[in-house]
Amino acid sequence: MSIIAVGSLAFDTVTTTEGTREKMLGGSLTHFSNAAAFLSKPKLVGVVGEDFRGEPWKFLEGKASSLEGVEVLAGEKSFFWQGQYTSDFDTAITQDTQLNAFAKFKPVTPASYLADDPLLFLGNIDPVIQTDVAGQCKGCRLKLLDTMNFWINNTPDALREAFRHVDAIVINEGEARALSGETNLVTAGEKLMAPHFRFLILKKGSHGVFVFGKDYLVSLPAYPIRKVVDPTGAGDSFAGAFVSYLDARKVDPSDREAMKKAAVYATVVASFAVEGFGVEGIDRVTPAMIEKRTKEFCDIAGFMFE
Amino acid sequence: MSIIAVGSLAFDTVTTTEGTREKMLGGSLTHFSNAAAFLSKPKLVGVVGEDFRGEPWKFLEGKASSLEGVEVLAGEKSFFWQGQYTSDFDTAITQDTQLNAFAKFKPVTPASYLADDPLLFLGNIDPVIQTDVAGQCKGCRLKLLDTMNFWINNTPDALREAFRHVDAIVINEGEARALSGETNLVTAGEKLMAPHFRFLILKKGSHGVFVFGKDYLVSLPAYPIRKVVDPTGAGDSFAGAFVSYLDARKVDPSDREAMKKAAVYATVVASFAVEGFGVEGIDRVTPAMIEKRTKEFCDIAGFMFE
Repeated sequence: MSIIAVGSLAFDTVTTTEGTREKMLGGSLTHFSNAAAFLSKPKLVGVVGEDFRGEPWKFLEGKASSLEGVEVLAGEKSFFWQGQYTSDFDTAITQDTQLNAFAKFKPVTPASYLADDPLLFLGNIDPVIQTDVAGQCKGCRLKLLDTMNFWINNTPDALREAFRHVDAIVINEGEARALSGETNLVTAGEKLMAPHFRFLILKKGSHGVFVFGKDYLVSLPAYPIRKVVDPTGAGDSFAGAFVSYLDARKVDPSDREAMKKAAVYATVVASFAVEGFGVEGIDRVTPAMIEKRTKEFCDIAGFMFE
Repeated sequence: MSIIAVGSLAFDTVTTTEGTREKMLGGSLTHFSNAAAFLSKPKLVGVVGEDFRGEPWKFLEGKASSLEGVEVLAGEKSFFWQGQYTSDFDTAITQDTQLNAFAKFKPVTPASYLADDPLLFLGNIDPVIQTDVAGQCKGCRLKLLDTMNFWINNTPDALREAFRHVDAIVINEGEARALSGETNLVTAGEKLMAPHFRFLILKKGSHGVFVFGKDYLVSLPAYPIRKVVDPTGAGDSFAGAFVSYLDARKVDPSDREAMKKAAVYATVVASFAVEGFGVEGIDRVTPAMIEKRTKEFCDIAGFMFE
């Protein structure tokens, strides 16, 4: 069992009500790995510039089981994003995007990654590349894809093609509505599930998450966070924790109760993500802190039929 | 054990994406009683015009254990509200409000109501009247108050005074933010709880509910509704089901697990409310339907710590 994860590796300059942090380690692959590492360190496929050497590289080495698929482009800088969140944390206003090395991303999945019956996570990147990587990883027992409004709006056909090559997608509320044309999130999720997928994760931020399966629906509230510091990467952290749980516990996606437990676990791990800037929120977490918060989450939201 | 409930009795003309219904039975007291009646039929305190005789009165007789406190004003018409919901059901645009008999509401709680150690529910009305009724019902073991933005914005001092006479309040997201000045709903609820209350119910519509207690927090998602027909009265239905559960099961508000069960029950009952126009959604429900949906809700959202 193992995980192959593909996505962006970046530096982020982020401003929230809690302050500004410059050139923090970021990118979907970084946040995914940071959250997955507690249960299953993924094998990464990505691209960086020379500025990723040193501390950032060491950080990834601690969270991943292999960096063989991460290319370092000579003479290039890494992907850079700068953004500011509104005071309700609902919207990120992009102030600067420099693709740099990421513009030349031609992922090659190392042959060694395909051993151990891996899961595949395709982070939010160009759907043409997602389709290409899905093709390289045909043997993976379960393939998940994350996307965003940019691809839904600008390359819908390529995205629909990418959908044909995966088993599950991870989207948020706005993306679900845009993809389905439905306002109601339950019908949106069910409409998207129907033709394509074995399951669909619909993230609702502070309002929790839906997991749509072939013949079930799971709905959980978020773990209540009193002080959000930086929401960047919370969705990728949720995905990383969720996928690591599927891998470590050998979850069958048709098993509703096991999928619910994966969602509980991911809810708890992702809740730490927003309590610090960048990767800090989760990086300082211990397994004991996850267990304690899982118990708290059960006190808050857990119940059984009687 | 019993419930005294005070509030509006009205006729509503409502337009949603599903159509328009004219002069349906409505009002906070009607929706509250409709949902409470499965477990504990309340004793009502309200005012109506002569147009409430016949079918509307008969309906209330079926949902209440006493109408002794409902005054019929000769020569008057009942409260009338007309509104239209936006297609996402998030906002109701008021098109007409005629207070009619409701403008002369001077509630008198019958002495007979005060037997049986009752709970008191003060529906969304002028906080001066809420304070008055709370004074008439001093002996009630638990007093709950519902309010709305109109009173928060226009009579904040009277509302603060009313808060001093109750044990718990029922508010929604916007009201919680307006009352507390906090954007984060968890800190908003905790800030409001601190000086005043034994518990606080924070309704989030399709996003579920928080129940804040002295030393606990309960958070539940909503029961997923695929087709909303009319959200009018959903909040009052939640309150009615919740209070009826507290009454019927003799719940101690400091008992987190019992309060969580009350919230699960109210979530399920209120979910039926939005599936029909006016009182129809809940009126057609049987106890077996509630039990079936409670089981489904547990499949969707129930989990335990392991």
